Amino acid sequence: MGAPGPRRLLLVSNSTLRGGGYLGHCQQHVRSFLGQKVKRVLFIPYALHDRDAYAKTAREKFESLGYGLDSIHDSPDPVEAVRKSEAIFIGGGNTFRLLKALYDNSLLQEIRKRVLEDGIPYMGSSAGTNVATFSINTTNDMPIVYPPSLQALGLVPFNINPHYLDPDVNSTHMGETRAERILQYHEEPNTPPVLGLREGAMLLVEGDKATLQGVTGARLFLRGEKPTEHEPGTDFSFLLTDGNSQKP
Amino acid sequence: MGAPGPRRLLLVSNSTLRGGGYLGHCQQHVRSFLGQKVKRVLFIPYALHDRDAYAKTAREKFESLGYGLDSIHDSPDPVEAVRKSEAIFIGGGNTFRLLKALYDNSLLQEIRKRVLEDGIPYMGSSAGTNVATFSINTTNDMPIVYPPSLQALGLVPFNINPHYLDPDVNSTHMGETRAERILQYHEEPNTPPVLGLREGAMLLVEGDKATLQGVTGARLFLRGEKPTEHEPGTDFSFLLTDGNSQKP
Repeated sequence: MGAPGPRRLLLVSNSTLRGGGYLGHCQQHVRSFLGQKVKRVLFIPYALHDRDAYAKTAREKFESLGYGLDSIHDSPDPVEAVRKSEAIFIGGGNTFRLLKALYDNSLLQEIRKRVLEDGIPYMGSSAGTNVATFSINTTNDMPIVYPPSLQALGLVPFNINPHYLDPDVNSTHMGETRAERILQYHEEPNTPPVLGLREGAMLLVEGDKATLQGVTGARLFLRGEKPTEHEPGTDFSFLLTDGNSQKP
Repeated sequence: MGAPGPRRLLLVSNSTLRGGGYLGHCQQHVRSFLGQKVKRVLFIPYALHDRDAYAKTAREKFESLGYGLDSIHDSPDPVEAVRKSEAIFIGGGNTFRLLKALYDNSLLQEIRKRVLEDGIPYMGSSAGTNVATFSINTTNDMPIVYPPSLQALGLVPFNINPHYLDPDVNSTHMGETRAERILQYHEEPNTPPVLGLREGAMLLVEGDKATLQGVTGARLFLRGEKPTEHEPGTDFSFLLTDGNSQKP
């Protein structure tokens, strides 16, 4: 973790921004992230129930950007599909369902190897961003299934809260705000930083450099400290250094 | 499950309603539920980090209603505390943290026995309502810790979604609505009914009779069927009959 490497990640908060189509708000980032060398993307649709329909949506979008797309659920051997992939995209949906399917198909180790050792690009959106991080302890999703662990791919040594939402001062609802939920996580011992990525924001990781992209900014939660606000363009590379991640 | 028995439960959606104090909106229900025979309530504060502060808040409220309160975290032997309890109240907070602590302290079996066999009254609020049901698969909380299972006390054979929230038609946020999340749960096989209890609503169970109380109503989700709306006073006894719970 955090050692120099060819790691390349695009971790997007949300698949669809109000008023735009699927991945519409981040398509320029996707194109510049994948570049011209990648020809085909391996799509992992496990977070949604209807995998065929999901693959169709994703395929249409990636083809419009000039990339072929293979969905892992069409492959007879998912581990082999990861082994042969040039780039991986894990889409949003329910994070618990997604992580359980990754475990059930024994994919975590192979994805880690492809991304961290072989350096193929990894893109995640929403739940696909959650599973790229240290753990899914800060997902917003309902625990509709029980994965064998909440530990995730660990492509970065911290957590992300996608769809980060500021408190609504006009709400009469008494459920905890998002910030309160993250602070509850940090009441537990040895919990890593949590980056709250608003809808419209994404994190680009190139080796040991991490940069906040998109237009909406992010809120960073470090255990025992006050949350801080960060503008697009912020250099978050310090979060990639394990153990040093409690202080910027 | 569902067999005739002395089971007595008061399952409250939320501890505090906007504009009222702790348990203010349901205090008449609490008093009529506990009655005059109960002298002391055993409080389980595991859902919040600061157990001393939480017990103080709960104690003040219950004393104002004429009941003594002992917090289980002050007891050297939590199992023995349950064994000797006259009534149990589990308060809200983080459902994962609460359920994990119940497992860690080996309390599930003993609480089940006291409530289902010995017939002592059980009151839950929010997370305390979640853990009373079949499982915590439909909690709204963040999975800040990993309990050994999502199966809960099973005092009723269905699930509850507390703080149930209707979709906000004016929201631009793209996260799933509460109804969409519950429908995702029902995409999984063999999932029980989910009762969405709005803030201000509660379910009273007396033996094999279940009645919706409070003022805000509830929404019932049965797997494969359209959700239905229910007014205060609705008889939900059919949900207590295991296996028959898919059709009203």
